Amino acid sequence: MYLICNKADLIKGVGTVSKAVSVKTTMPILECILLEASGGELTLVGNDMDLGIQTTIEARIKEEGLIAVNAKLFSEIIRKLPDDDVYIETNDRSGITIRCAKSKFTVPGQDGTQFPALPKVESENGFVISQGTFKDMIRQTIFSIAAEDSGRPVLTGELIDVRGGYLHLVAVDGFRISMRRTAINSPIDFKVIVPGKALSEINKILESEEDAMMQVVFTGKYIMFTMNNAIVVTRLLDGDYLQYERNLNMTFTTSVRVNRRELLDSIDRAALISRESKNSPVRLELTNELMIITSNTERGSAYEEVPITLNGNGMSVAFNPRYYLEALRSIDDEKIEILYASSLNPCIIQATEGDDYKYFILPIRLHS
Amino acid sequence: MYLICNKADLIKGVGTVSKAVSVKTTMPILECILLEASGGELTLVGNDMDLGIQTTIEARIKEEGLIAVNAKLFSEIIRKLPDDDVYIETNDRSGITIRCAKSKFTVPGQDGTQFPALPKVESENGFVISQGTFKDMIRQTIFSIAAEDSGRPVLTGELIDVRGGYLHLVAVDGFRISMRRTAINSPIDFKVIVPGKALSEINKILESEEDAMMQVVFTGKYIMFTMNNAIVVTRLLDGDYLQYERNLNMTFTTSVRVNRRELLDSIDRAALISRESKNSPVRLELTNELMIITSNTERGSAYEEVPITLNGNGMSVAFNPRYYLEALRSIDDEKIEILYASSLNPCIIQATEGDDYKYFILPIRLHS
Repeated sequence: MYLICNKADLIKGVGTVSKAVSVKTTMPILECILLEASGGELTLVGNDMDLGIQTTIEARIKEEGLIAVNAKLFSEIIRKLPDDDVYIETNDRSGITIRCAKSKFTVPGQDGTQFPALPKVESENGFVISQGTFKDMIRQTIFSIAAEDSGRPVLTGELIDVRGGYLHLVAVDGFRISMRRTAINSPIDFKVIVPGKALSEINKILESEEDAMMQVVFTGKYIMFTMNNAIVVTRLLDGDYLQYERNLNMTFTTSVRVNRRELLDSIDRAALISRESKNSPVRLELTNELMIITSNTERGSAYEEVPITLNGNGMSVAFNPRYYLEALRSIDDEKIEILYASSLNPCIIQATEGDDYKYFILPIRLHS
Repeated sequence: MYLICNKADLIKGVGTVSKAVSVKTTMPILECILLEASGGELTLVGNDMDLGIQTTIEARIKEEGLIAVNAKLFSEIIRKLPDDDVYIETNDRSGITIRCAKSKFTVPGQDGTQFPALPKVESENGFVISQGTFKDMIRQTIFSIAAEDSGRPVLTGELIDVRGGYLHLVAVDGFRISMRRTAINSPIDFKVIVPGKALSEINKILESEEDAMMQVVFTGKYIMFTMNNAIVVTRLLDGDYLQYERNLNMTFTTSVRVNRRELLDSIDRAALISRESKNSPVRLELTNELMIITSNTERGSAYEEVPITLNGNGMSVAFNPRYYLEALRSIDDEKIEILYASSLNPCIIQATEGDDYKYFILPIRLHS
């Protein structure tokens, strides 16, 4: 293998596929990225056996071939090279030589044919979506997936629920449900569960532009995201997901309209007092024109007033401020609506119009 | 105590004195900052008994008084307050009430009269120096003080050595000496050792401007730095410091002139190979017109060429790349000079003209 490529292109490509490289593994080849030179392109692949990412960059190929090299070392070296063309060549010690201006590196390599290929995902099922939209949807839900050590593997992923012309992206951790939806075009309805880690890595390589598109297709075991120059394949999670729809369609008696930023800032301040005091939530009292937010612990006390428009009965509820804060931070709207039924019931934070997002949050039941 | 002050002023003041607040201590009052309202000013003090910082901000004082409050909580609260005037008042539960717009907090307090006062440093001995210059001098030397766990307490500080109309700031860790000097006006010569931690905190509150001045005075036990609105007092370290002057005045046979940035980048790259391999330093070969930098370990090999102007004999030396990198990164000059004697001798990195900085670095002696 012998090729010449642009340093910036190479850094970008290696950055993309490195997100799928194992950090700790008993199989050294999984700490590598595959370099494959053929037909005027350099293809780069990272694959930790759960998540695989492939990208291609332009290169002048003097001799075709493939080799796997340690991702971390290779990435560190190319990022520090001078700004010049990069020459990469396999050497007679089964490694590669990297040359750039007056710098020359040799690093060990491994047989590229032993590198695990990305699973083939050949399917017609799926949809096309804007990268910018999907990136927003991930950001606006992923904070409420369950932790890896929660003992509920299925909830460490997000549900992609396609039905009735909408894609719903759903994250549930047992205390809250975060749902974002957008209209899409799919001939079939389906549900698949995508690992949270994969979504958070995909999020990093998605472009923010609305008009950069991405194709998503899936089989029984895998889902594949195809962007301009990158392909991401991830294993799906097996298991039954929560029937979240009925939670989101509960009946509520009271609705509150409020400025998102004012509410966010007030809860953020009150949380300073409740923090580190697990059994002392933030309390919220709904009156005719004000939401009164209080917290009282051994750290001190906080009292905040936020103007609201109340429709229904006043009441008092207690909650974990983090759940409100994460939902409120993820929303872009200036004004939002919150639905309540009673102090023992969950609430839903949603848009003042339409059903594009819903954040369902369980209350904390107080003994007093 | 009852006062009204500007939020931004208060945040800045608390930020300044918080650098001297203990994080872990058995004396809860040392985790506090003192608020003292008197004569149209609010004085803030942090003091961990090694380092003390005091600053004042403008305030409307409705009732004079003093109280100590937990620094972390108080700082978190005021940073999150709305942008409005801040009202601070002692309450009848020996704490304070903080009000700002529609927010109200109460936090516990401690008797301000129990807060340890800053040591008095009444002395004529010292000098006046530009804050910007002193800030540069700290940055350019502090990386080579000894680690706290090095077993050599005296070397965890920096030597302030005033002699012959110059202030020398010196840091030594047993493998290298970093020295920066500047001309100052002092009627007496003296040497004191200032704890590294104090200097690194002072560095954060010094202004970058050349024309903001600072007064430095010392007694046998303490040194005091007085800036516009802040006073910093720190305990001095006891003990005998290294007689560094003779190291810096050794005889050298070879000098190299080189572009600092090119040398820095080349060593930075070669260090990627030697890193994590303790017994494999970076090697440097001086030839007539080139410095050849190489590293060979099980991670791979690096070869770099940097153009130089050599005066004296060619030779080969090996060194810990971190020592070169930290010195080269701290220097601002475009071109530098390095003095060598042999592969068994230290080198000195210095300016091509004048003696304003010297970095003395021991070599690694290779067995081969």
